[in-house]
Amino acid sequence: MNKKLKTLVAGITLTAMAGITFAQTVGKMEDQIRWRQSAYHTMAWSMTRIKANVDGQYNKDQVVEAANVIQAIANSKMGALYQSGSDKGKGWKETRLKSEFFGHSDLPQIAQNFGAAANEMAKVAAGGDAAAVKAQFGKLGEACKGCHDKFRKDE
Amino acid sequence: MNKKLKTLVAGITLTAMAGITFAQTVGKMEDQIRWRQSAYHTMAWSMTRIKANVDGQYNKDQVVEAANVIQAIANSKMGALYQSGSDKGKGWKETRLKSEFFGHSDLPQIAQNFGAAANEMAKVAAGGDAAAVKAQFGKLGEACKGCHDKFRKDE
Repeated sequence: MNKKLKTLVAGITLTAMAGITFAQTVGKMEDQIRWRQSAYHTMAWSMTRIKANVDGQYNKDQVVEAANVIQAIANSKMGALYQSGSDKGKGWKETRLKSEFFGHSDLPQIAQNFGAAANEMAKVAAGGDAAAVKAQFGKLGEACKGCHDKFRKDE
Repeated sequence: MNKKLKTLVAGITLTAMAGITFAQTVGKMEDQIRWRQSAYHTMAWSMTRIKANVDGQYNKDQVVEAANVIQAIANSKMGALYQSGSDKGKGWKETRLKSEFFGHSDLPQIAQNFGAAANEMAKVAAGGDAAAVKAQFGKLGEACKGCHDKFRKDE
């Protein structure tokens, strides 16, 4: 097998492992990185909104809106945007993804924790209990941090 | 009334008109612009996913995931990120917002069209009829364009 073909097969294997079907457009490398950065910043905006509500005057609708954005993105299988080699390159800015992300054995658990915390956040937000929202906001932040600590380079 | 106070009052009036309560953190001007750009790019990624599915092999889950992201963002009252003066400045890049956006009489209708099209997109996606999804995808694209044509500068 020549080198080009080997790279292709390795790419397909990784893609298959990530559960991606081929109908999905993953875009060029810079698109993948920019889309990732955009999605995380959209979640960061939403986290900021929830924090402002639990720290200040509580507005249920705002918290529900923000939690729904986080939940939808958390369930959108962003794994498709982590193609092999995308630990190098620039979207809006250079990616901070560490190389050890790819194929790391902790990754499925970390991803599952985040998804579960995001789903629970949306559920608790819909309930409208500010104290419960504050507690779940803390847990969701921890779930985010679980990935950042392990797979994101410091700025 | 001095100039500074006039500016403040005008800002508060615009904010009130946009239906924003003060518990919400709108961030510094560059945060607002970066959050806007991030949210639109997250929706653009989702539109790309839907398009890949209606043009190629159809995967219902992918379309539902993407439509849910667009719906959640469309319902997140992004108007809060359009504070007076935010037609100038840089988030990830210089904003392309035209000055005539602020207070334009067509804005409520354009925003309502987009929200309705995004909600319908999520509903149709959940139904799983590829032809209906394709038709609604077109309508949603038109709703996006309704704002772009009027309030977004060309690149």
